[in-house]
Amino acid sequence: MAIQKELLPKPVYLDKVQLADGFWGERQAVNRSRTIPAIYEQLQNTGRIDAWRMDPDRERPKPRSVIYMFWDSDTSKWLEAVGYSLHTHPDPALEQQADDLIDLMARAQQPDGYLNTYFGNLEPENRWRNLRDWHEMYNAGHLIEGAIAYYRATGKRTVLDVLARFADHIAARFGPNEGQQRGYPGHPELELALVRLYQETGDERYLALSKYFLDERGQEPHYFDLEAQARGEDPAGFWAQTYRYCQAHVPIREQTEATGHAVRACYLYAAIADVARETQDQELADLSRRLWDDLTRHQMYITGGLGPARSNEGFTFAYDLPNETAYAETCAGIALAFWAHRMFHLDPDRRYIDVMERALYNNVLAGVSFEGDQFFYANPLTAYPHVNPHEPLKGIHEAPHYRREEWFFCPCCPPNLARVVASIGGYFYSTTPDRLYVHLYNPNTARFELGGQAVEIEQQTEYPWDGTVQIAVRTENPAQFALALCVPGWCRSYTLVVNDEPQTLSPTNGYLLIERIWHEGDTVTLVLDMPVERMIAHPDIREDAGRIALQRGPVVYCLEEVDNGARLANVAIPGDAALQASFDPDLFGGVSVISGEAVRLEPDAWPGEMYQPRAVVASTPSQFRFKAIPYALWANREPGEMRVWIREI
Amino acid sequence: MAIQKELLPKPVYLDKVQLADGFWGERQAVNRSRTIPAIYEQLQNTGRIDAWRMDPDRERPKPRSVIYMFWDSDTSKWLEAVGYSLHTHPDPALEQQADDLIDLMARAQQPDGYLNTYFGNLEPENRWRNLRDWHEMYNAGHLIEGAIAYYRATGKRTVLDVLARFADHIAARFGPNEGQQRGYPGHPELELALVRLYQETGDERYLALSKYFLDERGQEPHYFDLEAQARGEDPAGFWAQTYRYCQAHVPIREQTEATGHAVRACYLYAAIADVARETQDQELADLSRRLWDDLTRHQMYITGGLGPARSNEGFTFAYDLPNETAYAETCAGIALAFWAHRMFHLDPDRRYIDVMERALYNNVLAGVSFEGDQFFYANPLTAYPHVNPHEPLKGIHEAPHYRREEWFFCPCCPPNLARVVASIGGYFYSTTPDRLYVHLYNPNTARFELGGQAVEIEQQTEYPWDGTVQIAVRTENPAQFALALCVPGWCRSYTLVVNDEPQTLSPTNGYLLIERIWHEGDTVTLVLDMPVERMIAHPDIREDAGRIALQRGPVVYCLEEVDNGARLANVAIPGDAALQASFDPDLFGGVSVISGEAVRLEPDAWPGEMYQPRAVVASTPSQFRFKAIPYALWANREPGEMRVWIREI
Repeated sequence: MAIQKELLPKPVYLDKVQLADGFWGERQAVNRSRTIPAIYEQLQNTGRIDAWRMDPDRERPKPRSVIYMFWDSDTSKWLEAVGYSLHTHPDPALEQQADDLIDLMARAQQPDGYLNTYFGNLEPENRWRNLRDWHEMYNAGHLIEGAIAYYRATGKRTVLDVLARFADHIAARFGPNEGQQRGYPGHPELELALVRLYQETGDERYLALSKYFLDERGQEPHYFDLEAQARGEDPAGFWAQTYRYCQAHVPIREQTEATGHAVRACYLYAAIADVARETQDQELADLSRRLWDDLTRHQMYITGGLGPARSNEGFTFAYDLPNETAYAETCAGIALAFWAHRMFHLDPDRRYIDVMERALYNNVLAGVSFEGDQFFYANPLTAYPHVNPHEPLKGIHEAPHYRREEWFFCPCCPPNLARVVASIGGYFYSTTPDRLYVHLYNPNTARFELGGQAVEIEQQTEYPWDGTVQIAVRTENPAQFALALCVPGWCRSYTLVVNDEPQTLSPTNGYLLIERIWHEGDTVTLVLDMPVERMIAHPDIREDAGRIALQRGPVVYCLEEVDNGARLANVAIPGDAALQASFDPDLFGGVSVISGEAVRLEPDAWPGEMYQPRAVVASTPSQFRFKAIPYALWANREPGEMRVWIREI
Repeated sequence: MAIQKELLPKPVYLDKVQLADGFWGERQAVNRSRTIPAIYEQLQNTGRIDAWRMDPDRERPKPRSVIYMFWDSDTSKWLEAVGYSLHTHPDPALEQQADDLIDLMARAQQPDGYLNTYFGNLEPENRWRNLRDWHEMYNAGHLIEGAIAYYRATGKRTVLDVLARFADHIAARFGPNEGQQRGYPGHPELELALVRLYQETGDERYLALSKYFLDERGQEPHYFDLEAQARGEDPAGFWAQTYRYCQAHVPIREQTEATGHAVRACYLYAAIADVARETQDQELADLSRRLWDDLTRHQMYITGGLGPARSNEGFTFAYDLPNETAYAETCAGIALAFWAHRMFHLDPDRRYIDVMERALYNNVLAGVSFEGDQFFYANPLTAYPHVNPHEPLKGIHEAPHYRREEWFFCPCCPPNLARVVASIGGYFYSTTPDRLYVHLYNPNTARFELGGQAVEIEQQTEYPWDGTVQIAVRTENPAQFALALCVPGWCRSYTLVVNDEPQTLSPTNGYLLIERIWHEGDTVTLVLDMPVERMIAHPDIREDAGRIALQRGPVVYCLEEVDNGARLANVAIPGDAALQASFDPDLFGGVSVISGEAVRLEPDAWPGEMYQPRAVVASTPSQFRFKAIPYALWANREPGEMRVWIREI
């Protein structure tokens, strides 16, 4: 099926979607009041703001670390979050803080357009000498995304112009033409940012450069080999030992599975989907689906987490999904949501939105504390207090895996979280001229142009704690369009009522298409049945054998020690135990919890040596009522054990 | 209870114990015919033999790696294995090979006694400058052990004299006195070797130096800090980040738990037990027991494996015993056996022998292939083909964890295995003047001086496949002594018959003490009941929850894919399944296997996405008869999955 871009839905930008309170409204309020200010304070305290002053006396950090080379991305993701937030929630003081930063950025730009606080100031001799490792293009991408968000929110062009100049510098320098440097980002990100810049400016050069970066990737002679040799280095000395790490082991059109560093992978794959759509490149679209199927059918945690391994912060092999040592970086879950969103706009099908929803409600939101100012980098599915399962020795990405931290030496995740939460409204809706897709459910009011009319939609719901969604349509004139309501993949039965009339629609590609002429005051009630589900994992996932995970709606649950006592490995849920969901108004401002009968299978006493014949150890199973809470909210109370996959007997 | 050295048992040296065939006899035959020659070939091919020529044109290896700095230990462990083997099985060609090596060693010694192929030749300026990392003392220790073994076997003094001169050099240079250098080995080994050299020569200086090394360890100001500063380095730059890695974080008498690198730990603890015994130091004896209890009650695999973590090749924290990522280095199991053997001679109790037996029959022997020429470095308790669970990126200790290798860049394990197997006879018996302890069972004939008489003992048994042991006593004159037969900890019932008369003895410290005047032709029959045991793990070992391991006698069993199909994680053994042991004469020359009813719990088909509500997945458990083989023999057939801890339902 050939791509016809003009027929594909477009995402509705967040400025059209005003979230009321509800689940996401509350998360956004915390993001504004706590997360965005907390990150700015960290940016200041760590010198990341001051770095933009390009002080010639700034000392080179010792030891030299790649972390310093991508400081700019941390700042620009914060700027991007600010842009989204200002768009729906004006805040003059915050805007001033951003404007001051932008002043510094504008002054930091070099006459040729180059912009980078590390290489521009500390190592100018090393500009563009190591695309593989040194993150200049990655920074550029994040700067561009931040600039667009800020410009769209405020209409102020300064930062957009600065970044367009930097993009022009890059577009002039890199490319396939005579006199141009080959190459592409070691850490993908610029590719998708260039598509956004193209979409914002209409300048085709940016799209062409993005496409060039994609197609040049992994070609022989290998650019990363050549640039290593130019630095006098042996390419075989690449620390990661394989270009699979950065998805450059073969040309992308030959790639068949998700590989390497999970964030790099999903940023790259998101760009592939973007370019496929924008250039109507069927081969890239097929590639996107191939990689999507591999990743979501073989390499994804039930939380939407990606990348089991710390060593490459990424993928290993199919079905290798250990729980306690899961890396499942917050940024990787975010990147997966980005990619999923783009896949829908290339191939309008609910299956992508299912994964986006899974990632957002679970892996992504677990990355930030309920109070909004502490963060997880890795998101294991089993945890023990005071245990870092990855290594007793510390590395740069080391943090305890049982409690969140205020910051990290490599702090990519906190500002990434801030921009996702601030822009969540942008993931709710997509439109074609005569169809409105509703992907996510949360109280909100949103405005669209549909069937040639200005239409407003208001959602009322307690989602994700309850499956009832009420939608009111407001339109001055009757408007003919299809309201396409997502029936999430987790939902096995539902009812639909339009203006009090029950409907018997079946979903098309996962959406109930309610095609009619809509009038002011029309109402739709969708009730998604939301029982507690005992989820089981594919039989090749050896870590989950004999275990269930509890899921209700899109929310994956976990047991915590504070509710269920220690030694959760010894807790089992009987196969016939009744499981009950109930709303606890006092827990985290009101969340649904799951309870039911469980058994603790432990010896009455242990005779001594570590291993004993079972025959000599007396054991009386003890029953108790377990309480499971949403996974994303774990580690917000006393530190203790946590477990998603629970034994079943 | 004060230590009274003269009352403590002494080990019976291997020259007094001639193994017949049987389990260990066969392992020794393979060790002689395959393992020892294969290792020599590797030593030659990798330049380790030639390194002793001290060729002034030898190039420095690049990159500089600590591995090259302990080449000498690989060669000297081979020499030690040769010594043991020659003692019971003369072999003129092998002896000539060793003599040729010893000629090189003698010529390599420097006028001041210093001996090291790396620092003596390639970096003389760096002699003794980094005791923490550079292994000079570790090499010295292994050279001494090798020299003693070879001297005892052949009576040739050359190598013993060379090493005594090197030991004198070290004793002169290091110590607490004015003008002496402080310090102690970063990798313990020399400490226990010096005690052996003292026992061999009677020279008290060696014992004193060993004791000095022990007591200096971890004292402040910290020697490893001082020497780092002397090299112009920041001590905080120590790669392992903590002196727990080398058991030097606090003075040893203040240590309370087994820490750090597992091989270093057990070599050190073995030396502590030795020095406690030789110097009758009660505090060191108490320390030994404290460390022993910590390690064996909190940090040991059921296979006798030690050290779950690859990052430090060692310990993490109590009850942290993951199976698939278990490092459980072969050398660590060997070191545990060494330590256990010494603990018995400090505190004559079967509990040490139980651990020694557990390590030898399981973790240690798993380290070498049935054919004798391939080796495991790490010994996981769960394995998947083509999976290296530790890291997708390679490090120096990387090897696949599902099949053995012919050699390693860091090949400490193969020659360690060779010396243990060659000297296994030395672990069978201990004596006091009027008591003969029998620790291990295997066909053998052994000679002792007991009750003032020359006594010979002959064992006949199919152990470990059968629990019946027949012992014949031969003595020209009646001899009064106690025959002390070990009733292993795994054994829950037994019968004892002396000269056809049933006995009703109870064990004392784990040994049946048969006190009588023995006459020529007296016979003893001990029958150790050896049912299949379903072993369970301490309830704090989270990885083993809901699982059993099969053990029979000292042998731990495992399931392999070749016998039981793939996806072993989905295999469960019903709690009431009958388990049968049977002898399979065609498998690995004859071993006992365990079989019984098992269930494979898998969905009939998988509907698609990775995670599904259990309600929608049909599942029909399929029964089959499982077959478990001794863990030590896994990975000798087609590569496939392996699992020790099996689900129980």
